[in-house]
Amino acid sequence: MSVREIAGGITAAQGFRAGATRAGLRSGPGDDLAMILTDRGPVAAAATFTTNRLVAAPVVLSRRALRASGGRAAAIVVNAGCANAGTGATGLADARRTRALVAERCGVAERHVLVASTGLIGSRLDVDRIAAALPALEPLAGRRSADASARAIMTTDTRPKQAAVELEPGRGPTVRIGGMAKGAGMIHPQMATMLAFLATDAPIDPGTLHAVLGEVVTRTFNQVSIDGDPSTNDSVFLLASGASGGPMLAGGRLTAFAEALETVCRSLARQIAADGEGARHRIDVSVTGAAGDGDARRIARAVGSSNLVKAAVHGADPNWGRIAAAAGRAGARFDPDRLSVRIGPIAVYDGAPLDFDERAASRALRGKVVEIGLDMGLGSGSGYAWGCDLSAEYVAINSEYRT
Amino acid sequence: MSVREIAGGITAAQGFRAGATRAGLRSGPGDDLAMILTDRGPVAAAATFTTNRLVAAPVVLSRRALRASGGRAAAIVVNAGCANAGTGATGLADARRTRALVAERCGVAERHVLVASTGLIGSRLDVDRIAAALPALEPLAGRRSADASARAIMTTDTRPKQAAVELEPGRGPTVRIGGMAKGAGMIHPQMATMLAFLATDAPIDPGTLHAVLGEVVTRTFNQVSIDGDPSTNDSVFLLASGASGGPMLAGGRLTAFAEALETVCRSLARQIAADGEGARHRIDVSVTGAAGDGDARRIARAVGSSNLVKAAVHGADPNWGRIAAAAGRAGARFDPDRLSVRIGPIAVYDGAPLDFDERAASRALRGKVVEIGLDMGLGSGSGYAWGCDLSAEYVAINSEYRT
Repeated sequence: MSVREIAGGITAAQGFRAGATRAGLRSGPGDDLAMILTDRGPVAAAATFTTNRLVAAPVVLSRRALRASGGRAAAIVVNAGCANAGTGATGLADARRTRALVAERCGVAERHVLVASTGLIGSRLDVDRIAAALPALEPLAGRRSADASARAIMTTDTRPKQAAVELEPGRGPTVRIGGMAKGAGMIHPQMATMLAFLATDAPIDPGTLHAVLGEVVTRTFNQVSIDGDPSTNDSVFLLASGASGGPMLAGGRLTAFAEALETVCRSLARQIAADGEGARHRIDVSVTGAAGDGDARRIARAVGSSNLVKAAVHGADPNWGRIAAAAGRAGARFDPDRLSVRIGPIAVYDGAPLDFDERAASRALRGKVVEIGLDMGLGSGSGYAWGCDLSAEYVAINSEYRT
Repeated sequence: MSVREIAGGITAAQGFRAGATRAGLRSGPGDDLAMILTDRGPVAAAATFTTNRLVAAPVVLSRRALRASGGRAAAIVVNAGCANAGTGATGLADARRTRALVAERCGVAERHVLVASTGLIGSRLDVDRIAAALPALEPLAGRRSADASARAIMTTDTRPKQAAVELEPGRGPTVRIGGMAKGAGMIHPQMATMLAFLATDAPIDPGTLHAVLGEVVTRTFNQVSIDGDPSTNDSVFLLASGASGGPMLAGGRLTAFAEALETVCRSLARQIAADGEGARHRIDVSVTGAAGDGDARRIARAVGSSNLVKAAVHGADPNWGRIAAAAGRAGARFDPDRLSVRIGPIAVYDGAPLDFDERAASRALRGKVVEIGLDMGLGSGSGYAWGCDLSAEYVAINSEYRT
C-alpha cells in the first residue's frame, strides 16, 4: 500500500467542491467567507472540538447538528473576522441564521450544514453581510477553488495551509484525502483559533469516521503547541463522500486509510507550527522510550510548549537543562538516570550531562526546522509534538491594542 | 487578634540568625552563599518542594533529611549560581559534602542541616569554594544579616524579597514570623527557581507545622504564575524555634498563626510576581463565586499565566475575551452566562459583553499593579493568583546565549 502526496487541497477527493467570497467581516482585503459542499447531499461526517468551556456559538451548533443528523453533513460554512464567541444567546441565533441561509442557498437540510468561525471574541457576527455575500459564492471543484477557500479562512496566517494524499490500497478503488487548515495561537491577538477541514472520497460509516478522526487528531493537531491557550473555536471537521466507490473501509484498508489521514493531518499540523506569528523556527519534538504513547505525547507537548525552551531555540542556545526540566514536569514517568537528550544530531545528555560541541548544537538550533529528541529509557512509547520559537515579535503582535 | 508588619526579614522571629558570604559560585559581584541558623539547635521544621520529576540534588537531600529527623532542623544553607540539578549521583554527593561541611561548622548533626540551590542546571557544584568560604560566614541576629542573606540568594532578581509580621494573639506571648524569597521564572535562563525561607518563634510541633505550611503554600506561592515552568529546585522552608514561649499553638491561636503566615507568604509571592524579568506590571487575579476554592485557584492561575492575557496587559489592551477564554480552559466549573469580568474597577462582561469605557479600562491596565476580577456566579469559592506581563524584554533575556 502506498501513500503519495497530491495537489488539490480540500477538493482533492472526489465529490467535493469549495468556494470563497468576500463578506466584509474583517478589515483588510481578500475573501473572508468559505464553503465546502458535497456533490451528493449529506455524507458521513465527524468532528472534534475545543475543550475550552467558553465554547463559541458555531461549535455549539455544529456539535448539535452532528448529533441530530447521526453524523451526516452536506456543507460547511466558515467565516474569518469574527469568532462569534462569548456572545451568548444572540450569538447562537446569529450562527443559526447563517446556517439557515446556507441551507437554503445549497438546497440541503439545516441539520446537514456545519458552521465554523474564527476572529475576534465577543464581537457580533454580521449575518446581513453573509446574506448579501452568499449569492456570489459558487463552490466549484478543482485546485483553484481549494486555494481560494484556504486563503479565505486565514486570519494573520502568512500563508494558506493545504495537504492531500492519494492512497492506493492494493485492492479496490483509489482513495483520496484532502484538507486545509488555519493556524492556532501566536496568530493575531484574538484569533488564536485552529480550524481544519478534511474531505475524503473513501466509503466509511459515520461511527468509524468519528473514531478514526479522534485517534488521528490526538496524535497530530492536539500536539501542536503554540502558546498553550486552547481557543474557544478550535474545530477539526472530516467529511467522507464515498465517491471512490468500493465497499465500506474495514480491516487492513481502514488501517491504511487512518495512516494516510495521519499523513495529511501531520502535514497541516507542521504547517501551522511553522507559521506561528513571529516564529522563525518550527520545533519538532520526538520522544521515544516512554512508558507509553500517552506519556510520550505529554512529554513532547511539555517540551514543545515551554516558554523557556522556545526562547532558547530563538536564541540558538543549546540549553538541555530547560528541555529536561520541561520533560520532568510533564506528569509522565521520568527517570533522569535513563534519559537521553539530542539537539538535532548532537547528543547533549545521557543519564548525565555530556561534553558536547556547543557550537555544533547551536548551529542545529539555527535551522528552519529544529529537531529535539528525547529517549526516556523506560519503555516503547513514542510520540511527537510541534511548536515554534518565542520571539519578541510574538509579544509585540499580541500586545497590540485591538482597535 | 492583630497582625502588623515589622522589619527584620528572616531574622525577625526570636531564635534565628542569618549570614552571607561570597564563595564565587557565580560570576558577577556580591555574596552567593547564605545560611540560616537557629540559636538553640534543632527546632520544628517543614518544607514543600517542586513537583518537577527532574528533582535537584539539594531537594532530594533536604526531603530525606526532614524524614530522617522527624521534621527538625538547625540550619539551612543556600547557594546561588548553581542549581545542582541534572547532575546525577555526583550532584547528590556534592550536596552531601556541602551539608557535612555546614554541620561541622555549626556543630549540629548532618540530618539537621537542610540545603537549597539555585542557578544553572547541569553544572557541577564547586564544593571546594563553599569549603573555603564557610569560615568567613558568621550568622548573626538582626536586620543587616537578614538583608545580606536575602541578597545572597538572588540570581537576576532586581531586588531582595523580605517580609515579616508580628502577631498579637490576645492571650499568650507575641509571635513573630519572618521570611525571604527569590524569584521564580522570568528570571535568568537557567535560574527559574523559586526559593522561600520562613522562620517563626511560635511553638508548633513538626506535624502541625507541615500541615499549616502546605495549606498556606497552596494559596500563596503555588499561585504565582510566571511562565508556567515549575523548576527543578523550587522549595519553601519553615522553621519554628518556639522561642516566643507559651504553650504549643492550637485552636484559635493556631488559626491566627496560619493567617499571619499567609500574610507573610502573600507578600513574598507578590514581590516575586512584581519582579518577573522584563515585567512592568504585577497582575493580581481575584476569583469569587466559583464552585469551590480549588476551582477559584485554578481559574485565577489560568488567567494569570496565559501568554495572551499577559501580552494584553503589556499592551494595555482591555481584551476581556482572552480573560474569559483562559478561565474557560482552567478545567473548573464554568458557565459563560453567569460569568462577570472586571478590569480594575471597570466591569467589561456580565453574562454578555458590556459596553464599557475602553479608555478607562486601558488606563487601569497601565498601573504598576493590574487587578483582574472574575465572579463565576456559581458558588462561594474564592482564590487569588499573581503574575506579571509578558514583555519583549523577557524574550530577549531568555533567548540570550548562556555563555
